[in-house]
Amino acid sequence: MIAPAQTTSPGRRHLLGIAGLSPQDITELLDLAEAEVAVSRQTEKKKSILKGRTQINLFFEASTRTQASFELAGKRLGADVMNMSVASSSVKKGETLIDTAMTLNAMQPDILVVRHHSAGAVALLAQKVACSVVNAGDGAHEHPTQALLDALTIRRRKGRIARLIVAICGDVLHSRVARSNIILLNALGAEVRVVAPSTLLPSGIAEMGVKVFRRMDEGLKGADVVMMLRLQRERMEGAFVPSVREYFRYFGLDAAKLDHAKPDALVMHPGPMNRGVEIASEIADGPKSVIEEQVEMGVAVRMAVIEKLLGTTGDGA
Amino acid sequence: MIAPAQTTSPGRRHLLGIAGLSPQDITELLDLAEAEVAVSRQTEKKKSILKGRTQINLFFEASTRTQASFELAGKRLGADVMNMSVASSSVKKGETLIDTAMTLNAMQPDILVVRHHSAGAVALLAQKVACSVVNAGDGAHEHPTQALLDALTIRRRKGRIARLIVAICGDVLHSRVARSNIILLNALGAEVRVVAPSTLLPSGIAEMGVKVFRRMDEGLKGADVVMMLRLQRERMEGAFVPSVREYFRYFGLDAAKLDHAKPDALVMHPGPMNRGVEIASEIADGPKSVIEEQVEMGVAVRMAVIEKLLGTTGDGA
Amino acid sequence: MIAPAQTTSPGRRHLLGIAGLSPQDITELLDLAEAEVAVSRQTEKKKSILKGRTQINLFFEASTRTQASFELAGKRLGADVMNMSVASSSVKKGETLIDTAMTLNAMQPDILVVRHHSAGAVALLAQKVACSVVNAGDGAHEHPTQALLDALTIRRRKGRIARLIVAICGDVLHSRVARSNIILLNALGAEVRVVAPSTLLPSGIAEMGVKVFRRMDEGLKGADVVMMLRLQRERMEGAFVPSVREYFRYFGLDAAKLDHAKPDALVMHPGPMNRGVEIASEIADGPKSVIEEQVEMGVAVRMAVIEKLLGTTGDGA
Repeated sequence: MIAPAQTTSPGRRHLLGIAGLSPQDITELLDLAEAEVAVSRQTEKKKSILKGRTQINLFFEASTRTQASFELAGKRLGADVMNMSVASSSVKKGETLIDTAMTLNAMQPDILVVRHHSAGAVALLAQKVACSVVNAGDGAHEHPTQALLDALTIRRRKGRIARLIVAICGDVLHSRVARSNIILLNALGAEVRVVAPSTLLPSGIAEMGVKVFRRMDEGLKGADVVMMLRLQRERMEGAFVPSVREYFRYFGLDAAKLDHAKPDALVMHPGPMNRGVEIASEIADGPKSVIEEQVEMGVAVRMAVIEKLLGTTGDGA
Repeated sequence: MIAPAQTTSPGRRHLLGIAGLSPQDITELLDLAEAEVAVSRQTEKKKSILKGRTQINLFFEASTRTQASFELAGKRLGADVMNMSVASSSVKKGETLIDTAMTLNAMQPDILVVRHHSAGAVALLAQKVACSVVNAGDGAHEHPTQALLDALTIRRRKGRIARLIVAICGDVLHSRVARSNIILLNALGAEVRVVAPSTLLPSGIAEMGVKVFRRMDEGLKGADVVMMLRLQRERMEGAFVPSVREYFRYFGLDAAKLDHAKPDALVMHPGPMNRGVEIASEIADGPKSVIEEQVEMGVAVRMAVIEKLLGTTGDGA
Repeated sequence: MIAPAQTTSPGRRHLLGIAGLSPQDITELLDLAEAEVAVSRQTEKKKSILKGRTQINLFFEASTRTQASFELAGKRLGADVMNMSVASSSVKKGETLIDTAMTLNAMQPDILVVRHHSAGAVALLAQKVACSVVNAGDGAHEHPTQALLDALTIRRRKGRIARLIVAICGDVLHSRVARSNIILLNALGAEVRVVAPSTLLPSGIAEMGVKVFRRMDEGLKGADVVMMLRLQRERMEGAFVPSVREYFRYFGLDAAKLDHAKPDALVMHPGPMNRGVEIASEIADGPKSVIEEQVEMGVAVRMAVIEKLLGTTGDGA
């Protein structure tokens, strides 16, 4: 009885990961996002294209910046946006993920933006609901809008993605950001490197089409883009937590290490930064840093994703 | 000096409970809710009838689903909706319920939606403020919009409420949902049964016009509707908390027990469910379950209540 | 690359404190606020003047009433408002104040409303961002919109500020409200007194242009306005926390003490009140109290501040 028209709609689509997107899908999203950048730079930063649509941000993990970015994206498209932080609510009463999802689904949202601490949870949820679902980060699996905003930032600065050398450095093991970026950058023809100590590399990394380096000087040599990852000490267990001082010495980005990259290299970080751990403050705030621009592109990319999924932009992805 | 026109307005009305509503009041609300169902099923799920009105959801107890339902209801009517979770705020600073209410009242809301852990707190608050008040659950007293959404769900499926046999099963003692449903269903002429162990029945239950059963097979015999209640173990004290396994065996709804009801019986639950405690998963997800439809009707009923209270629909209830 | 037009805009202004505002600035804000009062008293309490603008409420300290007041102010001006409670988010991950601010800034808000537990933090933040910033309270430094709403309340009741005798009583030491009020009331020509025990007076108080009293009977003698302060026991340390009973006896406002003020004196309190500590309930709820009116004026003043800062009202402050 619930919204059968929506359930069977050919227009229902999800963004669960970068895996599964064609290079053309990605390029179309980046092109649309390029147009959305202008919206947020206007005085009246608002479209009415999604007026009367309902977007629910369902966050099982707290995240200031990602939730804020999706909230502003939805509001600037004219949608009604509702935030649900589930950590502090029904989960405590023992409700299952799927029951929470089905409950929200019955309230007829057009789009659910979901962050969850378990890899695969968002895809599972997407199978059960009648609306579009965007993965805003699921465990160590994927964080597709982060990869898209990184790509948009690079493309605006460098004019292209193909054939660029991109070095992704640091805690690759715990990073869904790294995974999504590797898939996207490979799809668009970049040369992707990962630079990390062995203990922070996932086992199957070599099969992902990347070159693996264990030293920053070698990994950054000739790089066009240096993408630093947050050291996620909160996800590590006792014996394997590296010393912050030691980590910075070998893998923290400072001027000396950055000198190995191209002179016009871009420095990126998905935030929030641990200054003095994976990145020196002088680099984070320096002329090569595009970290704030990444945040601006985040809103634009999320506007593009939401607009595309809701099928209001021509034929869709 | 504060909004004297509003204070003396003949149009100010509250929904504090089902008690006090006439059968005609209830029917008018259900009829309006029926029209609201269509709004949420549209692509542009929004009316402008409450544009520029302010709705404040003041929740002294956390509740994902009820707050979300009221928030969407208000937004889809075009109101500005503000959520206030008071558990984490001024209450800590020792402010009284009434001071919190008077403060919000001075900000000129049109409607306050209030949940509180004490029976009667919402009615007390309603006496102090100049705006309309909706009780979104007060202690073990009433939860009128839940009873209305249950009635709407039943009426849509069965075409009527009168003369149906409705069995309300489980933790009646701690349930404002049960109380509001008993009053409403009696008002509209249903035959209401409660089925529960003696320890989970309130003392005055027999005077509420219900038949009391202590066994599920007897209580469900010939029932048109089987309404399960959440076992609220969090409200019980030490010695009286039943064993989950034992509880499920005698009072959890499974296929065998459901077989005693009519073949076309509806299965309902106000959520969030304890699967395997008061209801088996196969029943919750089975063909007789209308649990998700209840959630959808929840948004529609709350839209109807808000619209009616704000006096924008003809002469009002 | 981020919003250069905005960064260099001559229209960018902040409200960081009352210090620095001219009497004319203050009067213009009060005049505009006077007009905003009418907006919230309409049935459709909404302007469209800030349609498509983004307001972010960034609260590093929880505050029910102030955040709510700013949220409603923004919404009634037509802006999109986003709340960020940072206590429970990225700060946990070790992100700095400035990184949080820069991240939000990159999302292109038009206005940031900031509360922070450290004096000066809001001014620091304002130097880093491209948008307008409103100080919603920084440590024991300033809370300018509170002083403006107090002034508006007094002016509406007494017709003027100049030459009124205003007694600010109680915990001046921990009060940004007192500081902002002293500066504003002095600027507009009132005679300002502070009444407090020595232990609750800041060291430089005598240089702020106030008369200091240590007894309520003397300090309230002939006062037009009695402004009580919240006893902020949560900010005091061990030995210096006064006994509540003792405090009330000497500094709590009761009928006997209030008798020393003028017969038509106003009683004010910024809330939330400790009834029976700094103020007796009979006084808080009595005919001289304008405490709820202060709350109503709060929304109006914040609307005026936001509208003024965003440069939409003629020539600006």
